Amino acid sequence: APMASAPSVPAVTAPAPIAPPPTAPAAATPARKAVGARELRRQQTRETIVDAAAELFAERGFDQVSVLEIAQRAGVVEKTVFNHFPVKEGLVFESDPPMRAALIEAVRRRPLGRSVASAAGGFVVAAIGQLGSPAAIDAVAEMARVVRGSRTLMVREREILGTLTDALAEQIRLETRAPDGDLEPWLAAHAVLGLYAALLELARDRALAGTPGPVMAEELQAAGRRGLALLERGLAGYAPAR
Amino acid sequence: APMASAPSVPAVTAPAPIAPPPTAPAAATPARKAVGARELRRQQTRETIVDAAAELFAERGFDQVSVLEIAQRAGVVEKTVFNHFPVKEGLVFESDPPMRAALIEAVRRRPLGRSVASAAGGFVVAAIGQLGSPAAIDAVAEMARVVRGSRTLMVREREILGTLTDALAEQIRLETRAPDGDLEPWLAAHAVLGLYAALLELARDRALAGTPGPVMAEELQAAGRRGLALLERGLAGYAPAR
Repeated sequence: APMASAPSVPAVTAPAPIAPPPTAPAAATPARKAVGARELRRQQTRETIVDAAAELFAERGFDQVSVLEIAQRAGVVEKTVFNHFPVKEGLVFESDPPMRAALIEAVRRRPLGRSVASAAGGFVVAAIGQLGSPAAIDAVAEMARVVRGSRTLMVREREILGTLTDALAEQIRLETRAPDGDLEPWLAAHAVLGLYAALLELARDRALAGTPGPVMAEELQAAGRRGLALLERGLAGYAPAR
Repeated sequence: APMASAPSVPAVTAPAPIAPPPTAPAAATPARKAVGARELRRQQTRETIVDAAAELFAERGFDQVSVLEIAQRAGVVEKTVFNHFPVKEGLVFESDPPMRAALIEAVRRRPLGRSVASAAGGFVVAAIGQLGSPAAIDAVAEMARVVRGSRTLMVREREILGTLTDALAEQIRLETRAPDGDLEPWLAAHAVLGLYAALLELARDRALAGTPGPVMAEELQAAGRRGLALLERGLAGYAPAR
């Protein structure tokens, strides 16, 4: 699974909607080694369930597949699926995407004088650029079909983007010591995650249209750079009435 | 109902989440005069249902009230409610908010040389400023309680904001003749509606905190001006690392 998360977070072998950070957190591997046989079995069961669900969703669509069918294909009882995934959307999206921590880190560790939009936006553009890689592109198309085929999943994805926006806004609020009621941290975070959402949909459009990976990767980089420039330089000069 | 829409659109006497345009469309009145007795009775029934629903939602919360209870309080049968409102969220939100047409008009008719962000953002800030008026403030607080008390309504409101964003992006796309795949129209529209969403939540926070209307109106105007300046001048200079 090309877009699977780092070993320390719950595996989502269905292509994750939220791109993984450009570099996986280094702390993940040591923690994994300490895992016992029981936990290992638990993780294997979880991955089997996710794989079965991904297959079924790709075949027939998220809303048309029951949890019982997923359990049967994975060779477990229905209750086991619910133990791992209390809500069905959890089989597609992680509620705590691995990208969140990496995004906040990219902001926290930005060089002196670099703006928050440049650091966060640059991270987002780099993360999205990976979706055109040969390993990712088929998964992006499959994910696009599954997500766009289900109102439930589209709503859930929007909620996850909302929590990412809130996390970034909170980081900016802390740094700038913005008083309560100031909208600037939220507006800045909203602009960055808006760019992310727009690039993600563009990647999905292109993957569904069969655009070759390298072409798509270049398009995403170009669109990302232009979008980031618009956020950084502002909208005052954009689309004047003629 | 202070935030009720112009007569030509379906009445929502529950305080509308989407603020009405600063001036109601002038075309509304003539159309209303041509309405027959039957249509008038239909409109009255509709308003009775909306009023009954608004009372019940305020008393116990959106998710805790059944359509049958709404019908009983309004003195109609359940089927009549469904005829007027196929989905329960329609009792709170209009699917086609009157603000949409006015926002697009504000953009279309902006003076020569004025940017789309300035025209659309200025419209949004002016519309939100009305929420502090003596006639609106209680309705804003009640609406805040009802919407924030229901995940269904919060999801639905986010969807409505999404359709407003798409409508504005489409207008910008038409004007700029942006090629397919360009993100700029969407990013600009997203920034403007993001400002709207942020100001709406600020208005709700303040109304719930019991802030007097004139104070709230001034706060909203100041926050709106600062937010608009951030969108217009860009994020390049905002929150540099120190």
